[in-house]
Amino acid sequence: MSTLPMILSPRLRPSPYEQRAIEHGAKLFTLYNRMTLPLVYDSYESEYAHLVEHVQIWDVGCERQIEIVGPDALRLVELITPRDISSCKVGQGKYAPLCDENGGIMNDPIVLRLAEDRFWLSIADSDILFWVKGIAYGRGFDVRVFEPDVSPLAIQGPKADDLVAEVVGEHTRDIRFFWFIDGTLAGAPVKIARSGWSGQGGFEIYLEDGSKGSALWDLFWEAGQKYNIRPGAPNLIERIETGLKSYGQDMTMDTNPFEASMDRYMDLDKEAEYMCREALAKVAATGPAQRLVNLKIAGGPVPPSRAEWRVRDEGGKDIGAITSRTWSPRFGCGIAMAMIETPYTQPGTKVRVDAEGDVRDATVHDEKWN
Amino acid sequence: MSTLPMILSPRLRPSPYEQRAIEHGAKLFTLYNRMTLPLVYDSYESEYAHLVEHVQIWDVGCERQIEIVGPDALRLVELITPRDISSCKVGQGKYAPLCDENGGIMNDPIVLRLAEDRFWLSIADSDILFWVKGIAYGRGFDVRVFEPDVSPLAIQGPKADDLVAEVVGEHTRDIRFFWFIDGTLAGAPVKIARSGWSGQGGFEIYLEDGSKGSALWDLFWEAGQKYNIRPGAPNLIERIETGLKSYGQDMTMDTNPFEASMDRYMDLDKEAEYMCREALAKVAATGPAQRLVNLKIAGGPVPPSRAEWRVRDEGGKDIGAITSRTWSPRFGCGIAMAMIETPYTQPGTKVRVDAEGDVRDATVHDEKWN
Repeated sequence: MSTLPMILSPRLRPSPYEQRAIEHGAKLFTLYNRMTLPLVYDSYESEYAHLVEHVQIWDVGCERQIEIVGPDALRLVELITPRDISSCKVGQGKYAPLCDENGGIMNDPIVLRLAEDRFWLSIADSDILFWVKGIAYGRGFDVRVFEPDVSPLAIQGPKADDLVAEVVGEHTRDIRFFWFIDGTLAGAPVKIARSGWSGQGGFEIYLEDGSKGSALWDLFWEAGQKYNIRPGAPNLIERIETGLKSYGQDMTMDTNPFEASMDRYMDLDKEAEYMCREALAKVAATGPAQRLVNLKIAGGPVPPSRAEWRVRDEGGKDIGAITSRTWSPRFGCGIAMAMIETPYTQPGTKVRVDAEGDVRDATVHDEKWN
Repeated sequence: MSTLPMILSPRLRPSPYEQRAIEHGAKLFTLYNRMTLPLVYDSYESEYAHLVEHVQIWDVGCERQIEIVGPDALRLVELITPRDISSCKVGQGKYAPLCDENGGIMNDPIVLRLAEDRFWLSIADSDILFWVKGIAYGRGFDVRVFEPDVSPLAIQGPKADDLVAEVVGEHTRDIRFFWFIDGTLAGAPVKIARSGWSGQGGFEIYLEDGSKGSALWDLFWEAGQKYNIRPGAPNLIERIETGLKSYGQDMTMDTNPFEASMDRYMDLDKEAEYMCREALAKVAATGPAQRLVNLKIAGGPVPPSRAEWRVRDEGGKDIGAITSRTWSPRFGCGIAMAMIETPYTQPGTKVRVDAEGDVRDATVHDEKWN
């Protein structure tokens, strides 16, 4: 895996958990929303193996919150997504693609409804603060849009329920997926959501006081000893196996939610005004020209890197490209997400992957690996 | 200087010059607009000494361009800055703070006027594409806003004029500061601007075809041998000595252009509508509560890091903080930019700097070091 040494200039913000992550052995990082995100402590493989069996603590402070509050808050949130937000209850979250007027994906946050007129967008890596502020100004909406001092810490893995119940209380077992409750931990206000960027279950603790990062980490770390807790991070292997898409990589401003296979996160007939209605109606009418699918790839190791791997049909015609790839312990082969032309997206379709000159057989799968 | 190893995931874009930069020995980097920016090849000190005497080639591909084109382009650009853009001629650039409706600085690009109705914003590190697209949508402006395939390569230093004249032609000597001309280099269209993020003179070559990065680099590299060319980068020492402010560090969305001492880049009486008119008029009426000044700091080495150094008055009262700092070979002492309360900003004012417990004497200077 190629890496470069990055200078920690004051322009790049530390996460409230960064110090603990480094003390616990974080060795490879990325930058996400101009904040450090620890990605590897030991190796993707060993952390994957641990994550699917035990419980991990993740520094995901870089998942910033964009707060939208005021009389026009719901109207504004509805405007920027094809998902229906009016049905989102206070205390509930919804995964929602944000799209521009062309249907291009600007981000794919969890929208948390804190009050009738107050929302957080828990964002992936793009400056949604700028996007939402710009639209709010342009439309003259009566809202305030800002980034509050809120930094998520994730507790992920099959033992997360037991750990969070022990630290916070048994009532956390009743939190439904993407819902959240208020609490106080490490002397700071928090929101506790059943959420997180893995398919192994768990919680995200939205810490509302950045000065308490180490204290919050320590609380879970100490209680987690008996659950074999380890530090971890959003895991490349686990997230491709589970089908979690990464903004900026598997989808960008140049792809729409149909192409990104996010059909079930759209409510195109919702009542509220939304800016991509016309653009997405057009795509819905004709179907998208390309779609994101899963691939299983034959022929040995699949090293992740920035080198592009193109996808071809059996006749050699270029039909798209791989967007994320890794080796899968679960399937014992290379796996990938790939954006390819729609006629080739039926599960079972045979394609070829040009692995930097090494042309390999691959098979198309849907997001459930059928 | 503390650094962390960063994984080069596909989410982070390579600059067209990245390969050459690494081949030429780039060893420390930052991420800027989600693109690698090489910062150090040998050391800040040795590259500073070379930059002020010879000529350097810099990979600043991360200085992205945001293109605004269409009937409402001028109206939109005017709206987002307090600087008068109507007087900017085709072929001219202007340094212009972009401000939100509260006067907060969103970025500080060079605005290049390519045609009456076509502009590039050559941006610092924030997603101005999202900001400008949001406003354009919200206001219903008839423009197209996008990021074109344009990546600047900087040729900086006192010998830059000779080198660029030799490679491009003698007519480049007549290019005025921040003006630009069209050309063709390495088989690609380019714009050649007298510009760059140093006070040593030079040019930025806006390459309009990312696939030609290495070819363009080689062209200047080979011709530059007789001028003792070396690879370099925006240099922390040189830029603080020269007074070049870094967005996200010396100024942010929480500071206005008066606070950032950018008074001469505002035309508050301009005719066009601009969104920060009311907010900045208020600041102008009362004067800003704090201002960015230069400091000379006594007492030995001044290591740059993310640790905050606070500034106090002689009685020990906290009056602000250092935003950028380094050791200055030119002055033989520590130098800094600091945002401090206005009553203390007169040149000659004695203050104290809390260097992580080591309290040092310091003197306030204006941007010319008076």
